[in-house]
Amino acid sequence: MAKALDFYIDFTSPFTYLCNLKLPDLVAKYGYQLNYHVIDIPTAKLAAGNYGPSNRQVPAKIKALMQDLNRWAQHYGVPFKFPKGLVAWRMNIGTFFAIEKGRARQYVDEGFRLVWGEGVDPNDDAVLRGLAAKAGLDVDAFMAYVASREGEKAYEASRVAAHARGVYGVPIMIADDQIWWGNDRLMFVEEYLKAHAA
Amino acid sequence: MAKALDFYIDFTSPFTYLCNLKLPDLVAKYGYQLNYHVIDIPTAKLAAGNYGPSNRQVPAKIKALMQDLNRWAQHYGVPFKFPKGLVAWRMNIGTFFAIEKGRARQYVDEGFRLVWGEGVDPNDDAVLRGLAAKAGLDVDAFMAYVASREGEKAYEASRVAAHARGVYGVPIMIADDQIWWGNDRLMFVEEYLKAHAA
Repeated sequence: MAKALDFYIDFTSPFTYLCNLKLPDLVAKYGYQLNYHVIDIPTAKLAAGNYGPSNRQVPAKIKALMQDLNRWAQHYGVPFKFPKGLVAWRMNIGTFFAIEKGRARQYVDEGFRLVWGEGVDPNDDAVLRGLAAKAGLDVDAFMAYVASREGEKAYEASRVAAHARGVYGVPIMIADDQIWWGNDRLMFVEEYLKAHAA
Repeated sequence: MAKALDFYIDFTSPFTYLCNLKLPDLVAKYGYQLNYHVIDIPTAKLAAGNYGPSNRQVPAKIKALMQDLNRWAQHYGVPFKFPKGLVAWRMNIGTFFAIEKGRARQYVDEGFRLVWGEGVDPNDDAVLRGLAAKAGLDVDAFMAYVASREGEKAYEASRVAAHARGVYGVPIMIADDQIWWGNDRLMFVEEYLKAHAA
């Protein structure tokens, strides 16, 4: 069985957008399988005992954060745009549908590009339909799934499982007994995968 | 007048230990002056509106944090040891005394090495006396200063000034209108200093 790296994501996270630009190819390079897990950051933080505000709620952090994100986008040579909305639970839930259809990477790559590269509202019906189509999914079935109790339950189960593994934020990457947090730790992820190539 | 980079530190911060291993030479390389500013992290966070717990108070973060710190120490080829204590206000205050005597770098380098390289208790009298001696300071005058009202007032003024500049944590680096947070952003600091060499 191929070795796997677990990747915890949430479409509301700009650093996960950045991380996702590099991780899939990196993981493939060393023969690992990439397993996507969507979680809801605010819930994950609270469950981990972190009752603090989000970065967006600390005014002093916003200036530094925006400079930092723009530097990363320039460093990677990719567009960066703050999205029109940050309600992303339907887009997150849609990931389970894409995984089931074997279209996880196409879906996740396009979802992050839309939200943080183009700055669209992830909760817009037209955006969700376009994303599903681009990822090669049955659009109507997808739209039904993201509003279903089944999708909601999968999302909840994913959060519970992530919490049990010690996930307290995104992007978090786990392989074997190693855990990495942040786009800015990809060099350590690579170091490990290289030394433990599958 | 030489260009300057402002460096916000607290001896309780392991990432500031890591950052301080590289920053002084980096700054000197591009003709900048390094200005040290000590602050008290918990107070700075609260003042910035961040009422959240510290990393040490979120159990799920500790495992990831320790792995991360050990990876950085290995990456830099330096020792890393969790300190016996984390009450560092006297060591922080001593920085003003060292700055006044023109021994800031010697003091800060040795202080971080003792706390995070050797893992000593920063509030131990013998540690403080040894640090002052190593930094070339008058030990008795130093010990009197770190317990003085004058030192306490300088510490408070430093926190207020840092807050006014938008400092919400450590290590934070500021030059011109740019702000960087974290040892993991030194590559962006270098990029900027190179493009704006003094």
